[in-house]
This record gives sequence, structure tokens and C-alpha cells, in this order.
Amino acid sequence: MNVEKIHALTNWLSQKELSGAIITNYHSVAYLSGFESDPIERVLALVLLENHEPFLFGPALEVHSMKESGWNYDAIGYEDQENPWLKLTMQLKMKTNGQKFAIESDNLTVARLNLLQSAYPDGDFSIDITDQINYLRLIKTPAEIAHMKAAGRDADKAFNIGFNALKNGISELAVAAELEFELKKSGITGMSFETLVQFGEHAADPHGSTSTNTLKPGEMALFDLGTMSEGYASDATRTVAFGAVSDEAKKIHAVTLEAQLAAQSQAKIGMTASELDRIARDVIKAAGYGQYFNHRLGHGLGSSVHEFPSIMAGNDMVLAEGMVFSIEPGIYVPGVAGVRIEDSGYMSKDGFVSYTNTPKDLLQF
Amino acid sequence: MNVEKIHALTNWLSQKELSGAIITNYHSVAYLSGFESDPIERVLALVLLENHEPFLFGPALEVHSMKESGWNYDAIGYEDQENPWLKLTMQLKMKTNGQKFAIESDNLTVARLNLLQSAYPDGDFSIDITDQINYLRLIKTPAEIAHMKAAGRDADKAFNIGFNALKNGISELAVAAELEFELKKSGITGMSFETLVQFGEHAADPHGSTSTNTLKPGEMALFDLGTMSEGYASDATRTVAFGAVSDEAKKIHAVTLEAQLAAQSQAKIGMTASELDRIARDVIKAAGYGQYFNHRLGHGLGSSVHEFPSIMAGNDMVLAEGMVFSIEPGIYVPGVAGVRIEDSGYMSKDGFVSYTNTPKDLLQF
Repeated sequence: MNVEKIHALTNWLSQKELSGAIITNYHSVAYLSGFESDPIERVLALVLLENHEPFLFGPALEVHSMKESGWNYDAIGYEDQENPWLKLTMQLKMKTNGQKFAIESDNLTVARLNLLQSAYPDGDFSIDITDQINYLRLIKTPAEIAHMKAAGRDADKAFNIGFNALKNGISELAVAAELEFELKKSGITGMSFETLVQFGEHAADPHGSTSTNTLKPGEMALFDLGTMSEGYASDATRTVAFGAVSDEAKKIHAVTLEAQLAAQSQAKIGMTASELDRIARDVIKAAGYGQYFNHRLGHGLGSSVHEFPSIMAGNDMVLAEGMVFSIEPGIYVPGVAGVRIEDSGYMSKDGFVSYTNTPKDLLQF
Repeated sequence: MNVEKIHALTNWLSQKELSGAIITNYHSVAYLSGFESDPIERVLALVLLENHEPFLFGPALEVHSMKESGWNYDAIGYEDQENPWLKLTMQLKMKTNGQKFAIESDNLTVARLNLLQSAYPDGDFSIDITDQINYLRLIKTPAEIAHMKAAGRDADKAFNIGFNALKNGISELAVAAELEFELKKSGITGMSFETLVQFGEHAADPHGSTSTNTLKPGEMALFDLGTMSEGYASDATRTVAFGAVSDEAKKIHAVTLEAQLAAQSQAKIGMTASELDRIARDVIKAAGYGQYFNHRLGHGLGSSVHEFPSIMAGNDMVLAEGMVFSIEPGIYVPGVAGVRIEDSGYMSKDGFVSYTNTPKDLLQF
């Protein structure tokens, strides 16, 4: 339970003269309450009230887990056959006379807003609390950074396992499976996203998925992976050589690495996200591969793998101490090779500090 | 690409005098277009137009995959630094003079609707196409049922691997990891959800997650798992004994099985979902465990693991030929044991046909 952050949001409610907030993004709920659960299509909400204790609201079968999660306030359940929105708004009516509530507009669906409004016709749900929560999540505390460092160490272990699994004829899926299996056996309870392993030309499809494609000598192998530690994520990418690779593949790797290191070493507090993106992009453009770097430089991470700040052209957000994000340039030349090199880390007074320490030079296996 | 189903939706647009539909649930997009991709926080849409060919719209780096996926119409990409909603609505304005478009209100967030409306102030996005898509997905074709049967056979393999992995002191996570590893090695590319393995009292938390909890003789082991085959999901649960279990655990298993078999054998076309739920619930209530069966009897599945029909009290949807759903009663007695037994299958003229054939009697390992 993150009392300090809940307090900050309750203060914001007072300032905005709102009676409460209905927080439905399960990552936000986990971040604030300590209760981690993906409700899939059921309703899970953390309700903050300006003049009353907060409460968790969700499926009846989760109430026990809510109470065991370290959440010290009320936990209210609904049965499958009940209308959760009627039950939730009944609580709002009982606990406050006010009728203005903030929602997470980037999570609440249009259908759910309609159900909420039907259950409480006099309620005003037009205010958005998304930005306040995102800004709270944006600057990590030392404790959060410590969890992410641990997740980074696990990601380094994962690379090591993955590199050692490479052999002639093995499939991408088999390597990913072995890597996750060995991690799970060592007690690492979860990946932060599905491990991506791509060999050879297949890696030139930057958002393709791990497949039955098999490894041949002279190909590159791309690993994009992350683990969770105490609810916090790591995310990193390495691209290594299996046997002797072509000079063009080596060059693509060298340019990607130069771009990654340039951004990582030049990242400074006070710079905008857009400026950081440009540093890496200019290196790749100068080498003639500009058209093959077709995604943003990076993204924030924390209790999720995609949050603020987005490191991309046009984002004027200023980098500040405690922000955590990835730096992941890539060059994907169809029919030739795909290379991406990524570290995630945090902004300190002295610049960017990476969570992962697996070498980034072109390793050969 | 599912031409027949796209045609059915385009007809519906004509009947409703709508100019088009913006379909954003990536399961719906995959179902209709054949292009499977989770865009995470990016925008992916299938746009159907009443008087023009449909098109896929998404991140520029996905356009290549869209075109390779078997989609025969246009695929339009946007770069990270572009406003996707401006680019998308520009296409709408170019391709049709009409201004009324349906959306998927159970997928589109309030924030995205606001962005869409801002990009096209004269557009009317108040119509919902969710029900039409859900009803299309509700009745499976013979080809869809064949894919799900294949997924069911893979789930049977998974149970077999999982049962054989049980040994004194092994953790839930290690069993789940071994099971997924062996499946992946055999070429099964994905699970339909994260495999749940729970031992002993831990299984009495019906939506708890797989943990480092270790197996002791005399405990039950619950496996809830599913695989994907050609984009279609299986989902099944078995609870088995590790060594000699208590008489109460045996009784809980027997009552759960009786409820599961009663529902499965009595499911008939023309019955409501609510009536089917009651059949299983009455068996459990009669045995005195009613309060410990605290979730609905089942849920639909297909290209996702949670879709129509929901088999629960209060749902008057009539069961029809070609519907696919799970039947999964459970009894969770805190401090004693948790048992769930689940088969998924389809409604035929002769009743419910299960996809999974792993024995449901209390197996002992």
C-alpha cells in the first residue's frame, strides 16, 4: 500500500473540488493499493474519496486476496450475477454527498462509462485523473529503483541462459522456452512481457513474434526480454552473432550500438525526450540507415512496461531525476538483418544509469 | 481474412444507415482480417466502410506483417510521431461522405473516443457495433470448431506433462514452467492464458496465481490451462491427488465432478445460460458446499478465452448449435482444499461435446 501516493491524489481531489476518483487500470490499482490482479473482463477499482477512507472494489472471489495483500482499508466484492456498477455507485452515494468523480479515461471504456452513468445518472464522471497518476508513477522512489535494479539483474541472467541455448537448427520458440523455463526454476516468477527471440532475416520484422524459425550459422539472434521483481519490470534487448556473420550485419550492429551509446551517454536532466530521440536517430541517419529505424527510441517503464515518458520525436517532456525508460534504437533491413540494442535505466544527477550489464559489443556464439 | 463475416457486418452498416465502423479490439481485428497483433498502447483498427473497401490501420512497422497475413485490402500505417486519429479520420473523410460510424464501445476508451471526436468534430461515433461482432463470433463454423478441437488435444497433452511433473517438494512455478517448456518444444506456439498450477490449500484461492508454494504428499494439485491452435483457444481444468488425500478432499472432488457432469450431460439447445448454471449449482448446494462455489459456471471462448456466452445466473441467452463455452464448477474451502473441474466444448444437436478428454475422476499420482 502506497500511503504517500494515495495522499497526494486525495489532495488533488480536494484542490479540484472532486468527491472521489474511480481508478480502474489494474496497474494503477496495484501501484497504489499493493493488490496485484488482472481482472480480465471483470470490474476491479480502487476508489479514493476526498472525505472518507478509500476502498477496493472487485469480484467477490478476490476479496480474500485483497485483504491479504497488505491493503489496510475496506475491500468490497460483487458476485458474478450482480451489477457491479450499481453496487459500486451505491457505495459512492453512501460515503459522500458529492457527485463529481474522476475516472481514468485512458482505461475506462465507453461502454463502462455508459454503465457507470446509468447506475448513477446524477454523477459527473467527466474529469480525468490519468495525468495525475501517470505523473506520480513517472518519478520513481529509491525503493522502486532498487526493485528495478533487481529485475535488471534477472534480465542479465536471462540473456546468459538464452545465449547458451543457441545451437544449429534450434527454433526461436525452443530458445525462448528454455530461457523462461530456467528462469522459473530459479524462482523468477514472471516475465514482464512475452520473450522475443528472432533469428536472421526474421529479426528485420521489428515487432514480429517468436516463431518456429530455426537458427543457421552466420545469422544474428535478437533477444528482447524482461522480468518482474516485486512488481517492477525490466526490459532489455541484445543482438548476438551465431558463427561468422556478414560485414553488412556487423556494420548494422556497430551503427546501432553507436546510436545506443550516444543516447545513453548524452542523456541529461533538463533535456527533452524529443532531443534524446534525435541523438540516436542522427547517428543512424548519418550512417545511411535512417529509413530502417522506424520506431521511437524508447518508453518509460516501472510497474508496467509501457508508461511515461515516451522517448520520441515531438515529446517535449523534460527528463528529470528518477524517471525510468528504455533506450532502444534498431535497424531493420529486410532480407539482410535486424538489430536492436536496448538498456533500461533511470535518470540520476549524473545521467542515465542502466539496469542491465550484459555486454553490448557484438558477441559471437 | 473472413470475407463472409465482413460482408455480414457491412450489410448491418447499410441497414443501420451507417457509413462505416472502426473496430479496435485486436481480437475482433484478428477474427475478421486474419491479422493477429496486440498493439499494446498503439492504435490498431480495422475500418469497414459501407460503400468502399475496408482497410487495416496501425503502426507503420506492422504494415508489412498486415500485408503478409492474408489480408487482401489496403493497410495504412502511421509513424510514432504522427497523430493516428487525425490520420485515420482523414481516411474516413476521403473515402466516404457519411459521418456516422460505429465503434466497439467495450474496447474503445473514453480518452480515445475524445481523441477521435477531436480529430473529426462532425463525426458521429455514438453507435456501438460490439453486439453485432459478439453475435458473429458466438456461433462457430465447422472450421473454427476443428481448430478448437486441435487446441483441446494439445491441452490433453499439457495435462499429461503436468501430472507427470508432480513430485515431492516441487514448486507450482516449476511444474507450470516444465509443462509450457515441453509444449513449446513440441511446436505448440502459445498458451491461451498463463498456466495456473496450485497445490493444497493454495488452490482454495480460486483466482490466486502460480507461486513458489511446494507440493507435499496428501495434497491436491489443480491445473487450469489452455493452448492456442490456428488462433483458437482451449481452456480446461483438472484437479488430481498427490498421494493419499483426506476424505473431505475426496468428497469435494466428487461433488464438483457430479456438478460438472450433470451440467455437461444436461446442456441442451434451447436452454438458457442461466438454467445451465443452475444445474451445476444445485448439485453443489445440495451437498452443502453452495457458499464455496463463488463464480459463474462458465464462459464462452473462441479466438479469445473470454467471450459470449457467459454461463451464469441472470443470463437469459439461449444456447444454440455452434456456441462454444466452458463448464467449470469449483468448490474452494479455505484451509481444506480447492477443486475445479472444467471442460470446454461446443453445442451440437445432441448436446455438449467436450474438446478435452483427460479423465475427470480423481487421478492419484
